[in-house]
Amino acid sequence: MRDALISAAFELFLERGYESTTIDDVVAKAGVGRRSFFRYFPSKEDVVFPDHERCLADMTEFLNSGDDEEDPVARVCDAARLVLRMYDENPAFSVQRYRLTRSVPVLRAYEVSVVWRYERTLADYLRRRFAGWSDGALRADVIAAAVVAAHNNALRSWLRSGGQDDAAAGVEHALEFVRSSWGTHGECPAGGTREADDVVVVITKRRTPMWRVVREIESTLEGN
Amino acid sequence: MRDALISAAFELFLERGYESTTIDDVVAKAGVGRRSFFRYFPSKEDVVFPDHERCLADMTEFLNSGDDEEDPVARVCDAARLVLRMYDENPAFSVQRYRLTRSVPVLRAYEVSVVWRYERTLADYLRRRFAGWSDGALRADVIAAAVVAAHNNALRSWLRSGGQDDAAAGVEHALEFVRSSWGTHGECPAGGTREADDVVVVITKRRTPMWRVVREIESTLEGN
Repeated sequence: MRDALISAAFELFLERGYESTTIDDVVAKAGVGRRSFFRYFPSKEDVVFPDHERCLADMTEFLNSGDDEEDPVARVCDAARLVLRMYDENPAFSVQRYRLTRSVPVLRAYEVSVVWRYERTLADYLRRRFAGWSDGALRADVIAAAVVAAHNNALRSWLRSGGQDDAAAGVEHALEFVRSSWGTHGECPAGGTREADDVVVVITKRRTPMWRVVREIESTLEGN
Repeated sequence: MRDALISAAFELFLERGYESTTIDDVVAKAGVGRRSFFRYFPSKEDVVFPDHERCLADMTEFLNSGDDEEDPVARVCDAARLVLRMYDENPAFSVQRYRLTRSVPVLRAYEVSVVWRYERTLADYLRRRFAGWSDGALRADVIAAAVVAAHNNALRSWLRSGGQDDAAAGVEHALEFVRSSWGTHGECPAGGTREADDVVVVITKRRTPMWRVVREIESTLEGN
């Protein structure tokens, strides 16, 4: 019944527009009662984003189930990939919804608030992992924001492509950008096993931008 | 009249609660008509955040007025400081609003959407500055998110302290964390003039996390 409500809602939203469709229209089309709608969805917005609550719960569970040996940044990158997987389960639906969301401010606002909840979930995890570090909470907030921004940059490119590009590869590339700034390098996926105590020597000019130094170190490490 | 409406609204919100106060209550207390309210504020939420529109406009103007020689990351950090300045103009009001916002979900949602607009303003500027770079848009989105997260981490600490701490110092420290990852080091505020071609030698173990390498380089530079 939940799926029937989602299908009915989307058919109507695309046909008549989101604002002109009422919940009564949706339940009539799905052939169910109004109370059934509210059993599944607290509001009309929620039927447009039916899977975020589950995904947020999955993310929280995933983060709680990790051990403390793992690089915290790699862990939040893995958690972010759960969101991609949700979009990628049904590309046609995701692309349709993306186009709808662009044109309806109330849905855009809903999406922004969901993104914020993902960001807080990641930040709360990182704050626990960075507890006791100097600037632990600051580091946690900044990295969580960076991971979410990188993920969403790649996700939106994929949605704009109509779901044609390789979503996973785009997100991987974007997350690597964040991980290369803050992750534990030894655990990057490119890696395999590495000698723990290899020494890297970096010679750089004082006014070289830090990102360029980081990129230099990265490419040195990957070249070996 | 605008200020009178804001004062009346806050008095009522704190006395009766935000949800229980109507726009009619506010205009009655301020001694003006209902149309006057809507001349200044599109909705009840807007009276709680009366200065964000102006601040967003100031930020856009500030970013557009920069020249292309300046480090783009330093520029967005300067732009973020405009938000702090707005909060710091009236600490008592800012702290009061912070407490109100914590307890009213609709205001929290409004705040999240405003934060998102600041982030997009910074990201749009960085996308222009990074046009033609590889991963320019990704870099822009990630850095904008990091700057906003760092700024807000410090801003919230200050608001939680009841406006007692040094707001500017906290934000400076937080922004430096972002700038040290991605900015052009030669333009950091700690600096003064530096010899352009000084060479820095960094020796590190291969598995040292990148953030630690960055911090090491930073402290080497600052010690000189």
